Amino acid sequence: MAMERFDRIIYNGTVITVNPDFEVIAQGVVCIKDGRIDRVEPQRGLISEYLADDRIDAKGGLILPGLVNAHVHLPMSLFRGLADDLPLSRWLERYIFPAEQRHITPESVAIGTRLSCAEMLLSGTTTCCDGYFYEDAVAEAVSGMGIRAVLGQGVIDLPAPGVDDPTRNVEAAVSFVERWQNRSPLIQPSIFCHSPCTCSADTLRRAKQAANKNGVCFQVHLAETQSEDSRLRAEQGSSPVAYLYSLGVLDGNTLASHAVWVDDADIALLAENRVKLVHNPASNMKLASGVSPVPRLLSAGIVVGLGTDGCASNNNLDLFEEMDMAAKLHKAVTKDPTVMDARTVLRMATIEGARAIGLGDRIGSLEPGKAADIIVVDTRRPHLTPMYHPESHLVYAASGSDVSHVLIRGEVRVREGRLVGQDVDEIMDQAASIGLAIKAAGSYRENEHYGN
Amino acid sequence: MAMERFDRIIYNGTVITVNPDFEVIAQGVVCIKDGRIDRVEPQRGLISEYLADDRIDAKGGLILPGLVNAHVHLPMSLFRGLADDLPLSRWLERYIFPAEQRHITPESVAIGTRLSCAEMLLSGTTTCCDGYFYEDAVAEAVSGMGIRAVLGQGVIDLPAPGVDDPTRNVEAAVSFVERWQNRSPLIQPSIFCHSPCTCSADTLRRAKQAANKNGVCFQVHLAETQSEDSRLRAEQGSSPVAYLYSLGVLDGNTLASHAVWVDDADIALLAENRVKLVHNPASNMKLASGVSPVPRLLSAGIVVGLGTDGCASNNNLDLFEEMDMAAKLHKAVTKDPTVMDARTVLRMATIEGARAIGLGDRIGSLEPGKAADIIVVDTRRPHLTPMYHPESHLVYAASGSDVSHVLIRGEVRVREGRLVGQDVDEIMDQAASIGLAIKAAGSYRENEHYGN
Repeated sequence: MAMERFDRIIYNGTVITVNPDFEVIAQGVVCIKDGRIDRVEPQRGLISEYLADDRIDAKGGLILPGLVNAHVHLPMSLFRGLADDLPLSRWLERYIFPAEQRHITPESVAIGTRLSCAEMLLSGTTTCCDGYFYEDAVAEAVSGMGIRAVLGQGVIDLPAPGVDDPTRNVEAAVSFVERWQNRSPLIQPSIFCHSPCTCSADTLRRAKQAANKNGVCFQVHLAETQSEDSRLRAEQGSSPVAYLYSLGVLDGNTLASHAVWVDDADIALLAENRVKLVHNPASNMKLASGVSPVPRLLSAGIVVGLGTDGCASNNNLDLFEEMDMAAKLHKAVTKDPTVMDARTVLRMATIEGARAIGLGDRIGSLEPGKAADIIVVDTRRPHLTPMYHPESHLVYAASGSDVSHVLIRGEVRVREGRLVGQDVDEIMDQAASIGLAIKAAGSYRENEHYGN
Repeated sequence: MAMERFDRIIYNGTVITVNPDFEVIAQGVVCIKDGRIDRVEPQRGLISEYLADDRIDAKGGLILPGLVNAHVHLPMSLFRGLADDLPLSRWLERYIFPAEQRHITPESVAIGTRLSCAEMLLSGTTTCCDGYFYEDAVAEAVSGMGIRAVLGQGVIDLPAPGVDDPTRNVEAAVSFVERWQNRSPLIQPSIFCHSPCTCSADTLRRAKQAANKNGVCFQVHLAETQSEDSRLRAEQGSSPVAYLYSLGVLDGNTLASHAVWVDDADIALLAENRVKLVHNPASNMKLASGVSPVPRLLSAGIVVGLGTDGCASNNNLDLFEEMDMAAKLHKAVTKDPTVMDARTVLRMATIEGARAIGLGDRIGSLEPGKAADIIVVDTRRPHLTPMYHPESHLVYAASGSDVSHVLIRGEVRVREGRLVGQDVDEIMDQAASIGLAIKAAGSYRENEHYGN
C-alpha cells in the first residue's frame, strides 16, 4: 500500500477535538493536506511512518481548534488603556470619540488592525469577527496577517470615522461586501449595524435586507446597556430585542453582541428566531454594563460565542482570559458553581463561536474536512502542572502566552511562540507612535480618573 | 566626591514606586545595597556613572514592587484542576479532602510548595501568606525557593493532614512559630486558624492568644460562604464577624480572608478593630461563594490585600489575573465603572497586601530603606502596546508571563523570564508524578462534572 503524504502533521500531543462527542485523543496526530484537516487519530505505529513535508512536535501539549473571537473592533487596540474606570458616557465622549475623530484614518486603522492580529495570533485566536470603519483598510491588514475573519463595515446614523454622508451608510457597507465577497478564502464580508440606538429603524431594516440579499452575516450591538434599554422602552415602547424583532431584523444570520438587558420574553424571541449571540464578559464588567444571563441563553438553545469586544474596554484580546472570566462570572452571579463548566466555555470559544459567525461547517473543531485552523498549547509550565483535565487547564489556568503554535488553513502563523513572516517590532513601533500622537493631541489627559 | 557603589541597579524603565504619592519615574533607576533599596530616582547622567556589581536593563519596561499574594495554600497546586464546576460540598468531600488524606505528606507538601513558588516567582509574586498543614515542610521548601512568606501551621478541630491529635493543634502551631521565629529573614511564622465553623470557640481564643503572645499574624477564613453565615447565625446567634468579635480575636494582627458575607455592622466592627482582610475574587467566583463588598470595605478604611486562595479553586496563582478580576468584578456587581480603579487594585496587590500581612514597613513599595523585592515587566509586547497609563496595563492588560525579572531581598530569582538556581523541570516532574498517583488512587473520577 502506497503511504499517503501530508503537507503537515502535528503530533505528540493530546488532541481536544471539540467534536460533537468532545473526543479527546491522547498521543494524537492531526494530518493536514491542502489547508484542510485530513485525519485526526491516535498515533499509529512510529511517527516517522507518517509522511509529511513539515512535522510539528506538540511536545506533550494540547492540540485544539484555534479560538474564535466572535466580537471585536480591531483598530481599537490603538486606544488600549487610553482611559479606564470612568462612566461610560464620559469614557466615550471625552476620550474614545475624540480620539477616533482625530486619529482614525485608513492608515491608523491598518496599524491598529495589524497590532490586534499580532496579539490575537500570539494568544491562539485564529478567527475573529470585526465591525469598524474604514473596513477596507481592516480587510487589507487582516489579509496581510493571514488571520481568518468576518468583517463588517460599520453603519451608523451619526458622524463616524470615514463617514462623510451618513445617509449613504448602508450603500457603503454593501459596496464593501461586494468588494470582498469571494476575494480571499480567509475573509467573509459582513454588515455591521452599530446599535438600535445609533441607527434608525429604516437604516436597520435596509442594512438587514442588504445583508440577507448578499447572504452575509448581519452584526449588531444589542441590549448592551441599561440606558439603551430605557431609551428604547421609552421611545419604542419595547425592549431592544422586541424592537429589533418588530423591524424584522432577527433571524439566523443576525449576530447580536452583548444581550445583557434581556428578559424571558426576549430570550424566547432570540431562540425562536435562531439569532446568534456573542458574550463579552470582560467588556461588560469593565464598563459596568451588567451581566448577560448566559446560562439561561444556553438553556434556551441559543448559540452563544465569546468575544473580547474592542480592546479599549478589556484591555487585551486574550480569549483564554475571556474563557476564565466567563466561567467564573456566571458562577458568582448565579451562586451556582456548576454553571458554565469548562467544557461549555471551551465550546463557546471554538465551535459555538464558529457557528455564531456562520462558519460552523468550516472551523471550530478538529474534524476531517474542516479547515486546518489549529493551535498548540505548551503545558510544560508550572502553572499547567499537574494535569487532570485538559479542558480545565485551558479555561481556568492557561493564558494566551502558553500558545506555542498557530496554524490557519494549514499555514503556520506562530511557531514556538513567535509570529512567522511578520515584523512584530515594526507593528509595535507604528502603534506606539500613534499612541504618542494621541497623547500629544490632548485626546488624553493625565490620570483624570485618579483625581490629579 | 567618591562614587557610591551598589550591589545591583535596575535601570532603563519606568518606576512605579507605589509610594504614598504613587510617584511614577520615567527613565528611573533603583539602586540596591545589602538587600535593601538604597535609591529610587530619575537617572542622573550616564548609566555607566552608577557603579554596581550587577546591572539589570529593564529595556523600557516597568519596574515595580513585587506582588504580594496575601492568601494562598501553597501545596494545593497539586490539586490544580482535579475537579471543577461542582457544588462546594461535593468538591471538598468527594475530591479535595480524600486527596488530602491520601496524598498529603511532608514530602508532597514540599513538592507542591516548590511548584507554587516556581509559578509565583515566574509571575511576579515575591511574597505570599500561606496557611496549611505540615507547615515545617512548607517553610523548608519556601526557604529553598528564596521567596518571602508569612507561614501559618493550620489549626482545625477536625481530622487534617498530619494532625494526629486535634486537641493539641494550638500547641503544634505554637511550636511551629517558635521553630521559625528569627530563623530566616524571609520567613515570618504565623498561626492559621481554619475558620469559625471548623474551630471551636476555645480553639479560636487560645490560638489568637498564642499569636498575640508571640507577636505573630493570626490568619483565619471568615464569612466565606452562605452556609458558614447561616450556621453561625443559627448556632451562635450572630454573624461570623460578630461571633469572632465576641471571642476577642479581632484586632490589628488578625488577617481574615474572604469577608464575603458581611453587612454594615460587620464592616464597622472590622474597621473599628483594624482587622486586615484579603480579597480572593477568582476563588470566590469559581466556588460561587458570593462577592465580597470590597469597595465598601475600602471606604470604611479597612486594609484589604489580594489573594489567589489555594490553586485548586482558581486555578492558577497569577496575581495579574487576580488584579484584573478584582477590578472588573466589582464594576459589574455595583454597576459603577469607577470603583476599583487600576491604581487602587495595584495598591491592593502590593502595599496594601504588605500591610495586611504585617510587612507594610518592609515591602510593598519601592522606597529607600525597604527590602529590594522588585519586579520588571516587559512591555515590549503587542498586548501592552501602545502605553498610556502603566498602572492600567498592569491591571487590565498584562499577565504573569510578562514578568522578566524578579528580585527578592536584592537577589535575582528570575532573570529574563527564567528561574535562577532552580530546576523547574525537576519540580514539574515531581508534581506531575504526584498527579498521576492521585489519578491512579481514584481520588479522581473522569469527568463526573461533564456527566460521563
